Amino acid sequence: MILTVTLNAALDVTYVVDDLTPHASHRVLTTHERAGGKGVNVSRVLASLGRPTVVTGLCGGPTGDAIRRDLADAGLPDQFVPVAGDSRRTLTVVCRDDGDATVFNPAGPHVGTDEWEAFTARFQRLAERAAVVVLSGSLPPGLPTDAYARLVRLAARAGAATVLDTSGPPLLAGVGARPDVVKPNAVELAAATGLSDPAAASAELRERGAGAVVVSRGPEGLRATTPLGSWRAVPAENLTGNPTGAGDACVAALAAGIASGAAWPDLLREAVALSAAAVPRPVAGEFDPATYHRLRTSTLVEEIPDAPGAER
Amino acid sequence: MILTVTLNAALDVTYVVDDLTPHASHRVLTTHERAGGKGVNVSRVLASLGRPTVVTGLCGGPTGDAIRRDLADAGLPDQFVPVAGDSRRTLTVVCRDDGDATVFNPAGPHVGTDEWEAFTARFQRLAERAAVVVLSGSLPPGLPTDAYARLVRLAARAGAATVLDTSGPPLLAGVGARPDVVKPNAVELAAATGLSDPAAASAELRERGAGAVVVSRGPEGLRATTPLGSWRAVPAENLTGNPTGAGDACVAALAAGIASGAAWPDLLREAVALSAAAVPRPVAGEFDPATYHRLRTSTLVEEIPDAPGAER
Repeated sequence: MILTVTLNAALDVTYVVDDLTPHASHRVLTTHERAGGKGVNVSRVLASLGRPTVVTGLCGGPTGDAIRRDLADAGLPDQFVPVAGDSRRTLTVVCRDDGDATVFNPAGPHVGTDEWEAFTARFQRLAERAAVVVLSGSLPPGLPTDAYARLVRLAARAGAATVLDTSGPPLLAGVGARPDVVKPNAVELAAATGLSDPAAASAELRERGAGAVVVSRGPEGLRATTPLGSWRAVPAENLTGNPTGAGDACVAALAAGIASGAAWPDLLREAVALSAAAVPRPVAGEFDPATYHRLRTSTLVEEIPDAPGAER
Repeated sequence: MILTVTLNAALDVTYVVDDLTPHASHRVLTTHERAGGKGVNVSRVLASLGRPTVVTGLCGGPTGDAIRRDLADAGLPDQFVPVAGDSRRTLTVVCRDDGDATVFNPAGPHVGTDEWEAFTARFQRLAERAAVVVLSGSLPPGLPTDAYARLVRLAARAGAATVLDTSGPPLLAGVGARPDVVKPNAVELAAATGLSDPAAASAELRERGAGAVVVSRGPEGLRATTPLGSWRAVPAENLTGNPTGAGDACVAALAAGIASGAAWPDLLREAVALSAAAVPRPVAGEFDPATYHRLRTSTLVEEIPDAPGAER
């Protein structure tokens, strides 16, 4: 089983409008609501692949109820730990004609110390049943910066591998606990390390404790620095659409590959194919099966030198 | 008692951001939620004035529950009739620095025939206890265009005066039922009648059945065409702020004045003072008491000729 952790679960709300004009009043043509947060999206992809997965994290209030109802409707019963605050509603305003998206992300409810302790107790029990634990997304207010570091250690003690997908101080604190894989995107990698060269920045995160560093680079695919070597995996075609869910699909593929014991080149090929297949879909957590199956074979994986600066 | 009707009740949500950039991702600094809809705002103002008021209308779903909780917390217990659909959440994105507001208005839940019949039955009983009935805002999907016309007739039969504040086809259908007062703004008046001259357009609405037509004209104040003559009421000072709730404050003053049997010039002076006092406040349903008391005496009211075209 692959356990995904979403500490700042959200109801992802979409308002479709004719166009977006700052300072104007807009008629909303249609409204969609869907349980979200990066870990939830990862579990949706895993469930579509037929992989057993469990969703945990923190959610609460009327919005938390709506999140849990939506997950149950999607056949993804959750193991969320309740919090007193109301979970956040992220809003995406989409223009009907061009599909352009403007996003608003609230910080989420404040989490108390008791709630965090209740979560770590539930997490320990769940991690014992998991082959891989995925830790994704931002931390809600009130949690310590090293919250992911603590969960990585608990997962390791329970015998589960860990994939960490976050940014900023939680990423830096998290790598210190020696997660098996971290998956920043290129911007997050540079911001966390202060290094613009991806090879040097990846080496820096490995130096600080990360087992493998897989950097997502949009249409340029993935760059992986692992204990067994470094690879670059590039999709054989350019896809247009909404890249929002591509990172979560990539993490789902990494977790599935690690759970299956796949070799790095195979694992990266799957990850590129699955994240590229998420781009044609408008919402995170979904992917286009035809694109996925086409790119599983056409994606190019090449080994690259480890030395910083040796590769652009 | 003044009964306000909000057929499309809303949870008014505000997201405060640093700035609004279309197609970008925004961190939401703070979130506020508050029961809204124009009739609800009118009742808030009336309650602040110490006038007995009852809120009715339609609301439902988890958002309807949040609306009712917020009203109860504000000391405004409601007489809403439940609907199966989830009430809408209107969103205002406010930029922290300049206070500029961008508004998103969903259409609201579909209302079934049974729900509408249940509402009219409740409305009849409430109207019998009301001196004035205020009918404000848009109609939710599913209601007939002449929904307000029906309520105006039921209110008249129950012995209550009516103030209608809506626009477009519901306004035109509503005036046919002979409401005592309609309060379009200048844009709504021109759109409903196709006439740009406010005197001619007001005469047209009276011709179609409206008792009095009070047109709100922003900083230029009010223009009233009544069976007893026509008046213009202009605030003695220019106020800056958020004009969102000014129309609802104006309607509250009109309803309160009619309930008290005030003469038109006094009533219009109160309406200008109260709507101007709403401008310095960031949220609808509130007003600044100092501004209100200052403008109650300083507002100028002058009688004007009735003939279309005689007054700009």
